Amino acid sequence: MSHLSNEIHEQPEVAARLLREQSARAGEIAEAIRQFKPAFVWIAARGTSDNAARYAQYLWGTHARLAVGLATPSVHTLYNSSPDLSRALVLGISQSGQSEDVRRVLADAREQGALTVSITNDSASPLAQIAAYHLPLLAGKEHSIAATKTYTAELVAVALIGAALIGETAFDHALHSVPEIMSETLAANADSAWVERYRYMERYAVIGRGYNYCTAIEISLKIKELCAIPGEEYSEADFRHGPIAVVKSGFPVILVAPQGNTFAKQYDLLERLHGTGAECLVVSNAPETGRLARRVLPIPAHVPEWLSPLVAVLPGQMFAMALAGARGLNIDQPVGLTKVTVTE
Amino acid sequence: MSHLSNEIHEQPEVAARLLREQSARAGEIAEAIRQFKPAFVWIAARGTSDNAARYAQYLWGTHARLAVGLATPSVHTLYNSSPDLSRALVLGISQSGQSEDVRRVLADAREQGALTVSITNDSASPLAQIAAYHLPLLAGKEHSIAATKTYTAELVAVALIGAALIGETAFDHALHSVPEIMSETLAANADSAWVERYRYMERYAVIGRGYNYCTAIEISLKIKELCAIPGEEYSEADFRHGPIAVVKSGFPVILVAPQGNTFAKQYDLLERLHGTGAECLVVSNAPETGRLARRVLPIPAHVPEWLSPLVAVLPGQMFAMALAGARGLNIDQPVGLTKVTVTE
Repeated sequence: MSHLSNEIHEQPEVAARLLREQSARAGEIAEAIRQFKPAFVWIAARGTSDNAARYAQYLWGTHARLAVGLATPSVHTLYNSSPDLSRALVLGISQSGQSEDVRRVLADAREQGALTVSITNDSASPLAQIAAYHLPLLAGKEHSIAATKTYTAELVAVALIGAALIGETAFDHALHSVPEIMSETLAANADSAWVERYRYMERYAVIGRGYNYCTAIEISLKIKELCAIPGEEYSEADFRHGPIAVVKSGFPVILVAPQGNTFAKQYDLLERLHGTGAECLVVSNAPETGRLARRVLPIPAHVPEWLSPLVAVLPGQMFAMALAGARGLNIDQPVGLTKVTVTE
Repeated sequence: MSHLSNEIHEQPEVAARLLREQSARAGEIAEAIRQFKPAFVWIAARGTSDNAARYAQYLWGTHARLAVGLATPSVHTLYNSSPDLSRALVLGISQSGQSEDVRRVLADAREQGALTVSITNDSASPLAQIAAYHLPLLAGKEHSIAATKTYTAELVAVALIGAALIGETAFDHALHSVPEIMSETLAANADSAWVERYRYMERYAVIGRGYNYCTAIEISLKIKELCAIPGEEYSEADFRHGPIAVVKSGFPVILVAPQGNTFAKQYDLLERLHGTGAECLVVSNAPETGRLARRVLPIPAHVPEWLSPLVAVLPGQMFAMALAGARGLNIDQPVGLTKVTVTE
């Protein structure tokens, strides 16, 4: 077994541990946020962690009425400046906690009087140390270079803080179903023989919208990292603005289209792509997608849309892993990558 | 002559008109911003206009100390919610002013008491009408489906408001050199016979950082729209976090690497890519890039980094146009695209 496979299958357990052991901490952080009354939220993150930040934009924006913007760390590190963050909640998300640029954003923000919070998988890391509050992911060491369990743990952390901010029982209740729906999703996608078909795939696009914009970008990143295939990732809206021009017959498109408020848009796009002869793989729990998709990568029927990113990424991780295997690549040590990138 | 070619060559004139006729309006908007004292800036935009918003993140963030976040319009339109924008400057940027989702963000923001500003090329459009302040681009009708002159006009508008906020003579002075440095750049990149080499290019990546992150995304979008070639666009920092794995010998990479605070990082990446045998086209005014680049697409020597996005995109527009010609495509009416996308 590869580390990657182990880590993918550890995700329900990691989520369960985080829910069990960090709900109280998430509650404290939410209380600090309520006291501070931030005018906005500013998240510094890179790569995979940026996708967890995007999830916060939708969850906290829609249900906690917080305007969540993504920081531009280069303003701090390369241009030696900082925007005024004194009225912001500034959150740093990093699996390793080692990114110097993310740390700088938090250091500058703290100096200005911002409320600072970090989410990392290493409580001893510089990022964990600099923030006033730290939420540890408790995901255990991640050996594979491609982040999987730390990504979904970051999503759980964002959802935990979100549910504590929202303060409605229904959100809390749903959140505690996450380990179970993750396990169901992994089981429903266990067969990977069909992935052979994509052995010689030379490009692709992954499309999401709203809550699952992050999922589209993250799935695409896994395919790039593990399979070294160049591809693109878009929000459904931006995709229609121009990039859709590249789709010809046979072009593989992965649509992340769970049931919910974005489904009608995604289904409409699926119809259009099907019309052009594109090859559509659809991550969904909507039975009608089966008619137009080459294959549906199933997620459980009863997942609320706001939690769907926590499961919709799993079939994408498994697809990328199986495809890397079919291509004869080293799954745990993709060529040209290192685990920790210390951006300055 | 195609509309596209005319519109590309009109850019210095459009910039000159905007500088001449809208400096006073930009001053009024800057004064309103100073009075309102926004806690942060929130920009709603799609596609090309999103790239103008990214420019504002760096320029206003670095020199006017404003935290500039990009809105998530789907929170408003698909999830029927809105973050609290009452203490924000909310800016809508849209060439047509017809995007319903961008209009919704501004309508919700205005209702909450935010300061609202729009930048469009149509003063009669819904977006122009909804905002408290409107800055018209005065770019004339853009016939080509691929936006060129409206994009650089949006950058000029952002720079005009930025310079008025910064209030330093050096910025004003440099801004008024834009038409001239645009003309120089167009002249220096007039030869396109070399583009034939890329007739059968099947993929590519475009990399920028900081101020020119927007340029990288915009150049990539032009290649996609005009040439229907799938490609990727990254910040130099994110690219190293994973996607660099896809680069093999012969892989074409366009680096946007003008002189300035990001240059050392971009040059280091250029060395690494050169080492892998990648084919590097470099938009730059740094002579040392010539040693490692397959070709340098020149921009004038004396352009300050903060203004470089206004000229660095031009060689990319010209490359995409020439490549579409070499591929025998209809330059003004790319297959599968429409001029105005009314996202809801």
